[in-house]
Amino acid sequence: MPKLKNDRLIRALLRQPVDVTPIWMMRQAGRYLPEYRETRKRAGSFMDLCTNPELACEVTLQPIERYPLDAAILFSDILTIPDAMGLGLYFEEGEGPRFHKPVRTAADVEALGNPDPETELRYVIDAVRLIRRELDGRVPLIGFSGSPWTLATYMVEGGSTKSFSRVKGMLYNEPALLHRMLAKLADAVIDYLNAQIAAGAQAVMIFDTWGGVLTPGDYAGFSLEYMRRIVAGLTREHDGEKVPVILFTKGGCQWLEAMADTGADALGIDWSTDLALARKRVGDRVALQGNLDPAVLYAASAVIRERVAGVLAQFGPGSGHVFNLGHGINPDVDPEHAGVLVEAVHELSRPYHQ
Amino acid sequence: MPKLKNDRLIRALLRQPVDVTPIWMMRQAGRYLPEYRETRKRAGSFMDLCTNPELACEVTLQPIERYPLDAAILFSDILTIPDAMGLGLYFEEGEGPRFHKPVRTAADVEALGNPDPETELRYVIDAVRLIRRELDGRVPLIGFSGSPWTLATYMVEGGSTKSFSRVKGMLYNEPALLHRMLAKLADAVIDYLNAQIAAGAQAVMIFDTWGGVLTPGDYAGFSLEYMRRIVAGLTREHDGEKVPVILFTKGGCQWLEAMADTGADALGIDWSTDLALARKRVGDRVALQGNLDPAVLYAASAVIRERVAGVLAQFGPGSGHVFNLGHGINPDVDPEHAGVLVEAVHELSRPYHQ
Repeated sequence: MPKLKNDRLIRALLRQPVDVTPIWMMRQAGRYLPEYRETRKRAGSFMDLCTNPELACEVTLQPIERYPLDAAILFSDILTIPDAMGLGLYFEEGEGPRFHKPVRTAADVEALGNPDPETELRYVIDAVRLIRRELDGRVPLIGFSGSPWTLATYMVEGGSTKSFSRVKGMLYNEPALLHRMLAKLADAVIDYLNAQIAAGAQAVMIFDTWGGVLTPGDYAGFSLEYMRRIVAGLTREHDGEKVPVILFTKGGCQWLEAMADTGADALGIDWSTDLALARKRVGDRVALQGNLDPAVLYAASAVIRERVAGVLAQFGPGSGHVFNLGHGINPDVDPEHAGVLVEAVHELSRPYHQ
Repeated sequence: MPKLKNDRLIRALLRQPVDVTPIWMMRQAGRYLPEYRETRKRAGSFMDLCTNPELACEVTLQPIERYPLDAAILFSDILTIPDAMGLGLYFEEGEGPRFHKPVRTAADVEALGNPDPETELRYVIDAVRLIRRELDGRVPLIGFSGSPWTLATYMVEGGSTKSFSRVKGMLYNEPALLHRMLAKLADAVIDYLNAQIAAGAQAVMIFDTWGGVLTPGDYAGFSLEYMRRIVAGLTREHDGEKVPVILFTKGGCQWLEAMADTGADALGIDWSTDLALARKRVGDRVALQGNLDPAVLYAASAVIRERVAGVLAQFGPGSGHVFNLGHGINPDVDPEHAGVLVEAVHELSRPYHQ
C-alpha cells in the first residue's frame, strides 16, 4: 500500500497536530453531484450501484476529484448487513429502503445468521480494496456501518418509519428478544468493520442515525451498549497504523459524555450543539467531528464562510477537530457551494493550528 | 362562567399543591379515537372540521368523555394564523398541510396583515366559547398557537419539509427579512392567544415544533426571542384567575434554562431528557410538562404502568409536574392503552403529593 500523502484526518481524529482542520462531508458521494447522477443512471437501481465494486469505487472518488477533501468515505448503504442476513433489501423510488422479510418474532431473530464479510458482503470488501488502490494514498478511506439499534429499527419496521411503533413495541414488550437481536448485530458489525479495516479502511465510523429517538435510559441500554461492544471488538491498528473509530448518534448531543466513555476516538456532532460546549464536556478524551448545519450550503458564499468561521471559532485552537456537516449533504445543494465550504475550512482554520 | 371543579392542571402549572399529578395528552382529540374518525368523516375535509365550532367542540370533548383527563385542549390546527393572513391553507390526503401562496419575497412579507381574531379567526374563538360552555367547569381548557418560527417554516416552504431549505435559505441569506416576518407573526400570535384567553381559554401553550432544527444561536435569535415577546404580551390573568403559559420546543431540551428565562410558567419536555435532570436545571422557576415516550402506548398495560412509574419517580415529590406524552399520541394507538395511562398516572402519583 502506498504511504498516505494527506494524513490530516487520521491525525485530527487522534488529536495530533495538523496544519489545517481536515474536512469531509457526510454523503459527499451523492445526488448533489451531476457526475454521481450520471453513474447512478448507468448502474440501474441504487442497489446495483452499491453492489458493483467498480461503480461504488467510481462514485467514492468523484468528490475527491472535484474538491480538496481530506478523506474519502466508502460508498455503500447502511443496510448491507441485514440484506446479507437474508432480509431482502430493496428500494422503492422516493420511498426509502424496504425489506422483503422483516424481523418480528423470536423465530425470525433466531434465524439471523452472522454473515461472512469476505463472501456474503464481498462486494463491499472488494470495493474497499479497489478504492484504496485507486486513491493511491491521496487521502485516507473511511469505512462505516450502521449501529445495531439503527439496523434493528429498519429490520423490525421493514423499512423507514416515523413512529417506530414496531421496534419500540418490541423494546417495551419483549426487551430480551430485542437484546438478542442487537447482540447478533453487534457481532456482525464487528466482523464487517474488521473486514473493511483488513481490506484497507483507515478509519471507521458507526452511524447511529436513530439513537436519538430513544429515552436516555433506553439509549444507554439498547444503542450505546452495543456500540461500546463494537468499539471494544475492533482492530484498532492495521499495517502499523492506528485505525480511529468515530461514533455518531444523530440527536445524541445530550449523551456525549457517555459516548466518550465507549473508548471511541471521536464523536460526530450534529448542529444542535455548540462545539465549544461539546469540547468542554468531553475534554481531551475524544476528537469531535462536525457540525455545520447542512442548510448553510443553501446560502451565499460570504455566508458560508462566515458560518464556517463560527464553527471553527467554537472549537477553538488546537487539534482534535474534523470539520463536517452535522448531517448528510442535501441532494439539492449547488456543488459550487460545497467547494466554497471546503476552501473556507482550510483557509480559515490555519490560524488555529499555529 | 361556572367554577372550575378540577383545577389540578392550573395548580400544577403554577407549582401549587395537588392531590395527584394531572394528565392530558398532546393530540388527545385525534385519529386514534373511533368517535373522532366518525366526526371527521361527517365533517368532510380536515379544514371543514377545524372551521366548524360545533364539530371542533365535539371532538375536543370526546377524550374528556372517555377518560378522566385533567384538561381539554382546543381542537384546531397550528396553521390557522397563516391561513387568516391569506396564504390559503389546504390539506392533501396523506401529504400534510400546504399553502396556495407561500411567502418567499420581501413583498410577500410586507403584504402579511395582522388578522383580527374576532373576525378572521372567529371560528376558533367561537369554538373556545362553545367548549367552555359545554365543559361546564369539569376541567380547564387549554388554548394554543404555533410559535412564530414554526409558522414561518410552513409559510416559507409552502408546506411540510425535511430539509428546511427555503426557510433556512432565508435565515442565512436574508435574516432581516425573516426577522420582519417573525415580528409580524409574534404580534399575530399575541392577539390570537389573548382572544382565546378572553373567550375562556384557562391556559395557553405555544408549540415550537421545529425550533429543534436550528443551531443554538439561531434558536435563540429566530425562535426563542419571539416566544419571549409573546409571553410578555399575553394576558396572564383573566376573570380573577391566573392563565398559565406553557412553552414547548420539540428537540429543545438543551435550551431549557433559556426557555425558563422567557417568563413562561411551564415547559413541555420531550422524552429525550430525564425529568430529574430537567428539574434540576430549571429549578423552581417553571413547572414541567411531559415526558412519556408516545411509543410506550404500544406496550402492554403492565409495561405502561411501569414506565409511568419511572417518569413520576424521575420528577419526584412535590408539585410542578403535568404528566403528558413527549409528543402527540400516535394514530395507531389502542384507545384502551390511553386509558391505562391516565389511570396509572392518577393512581401512582398520589404518594408524591403527600
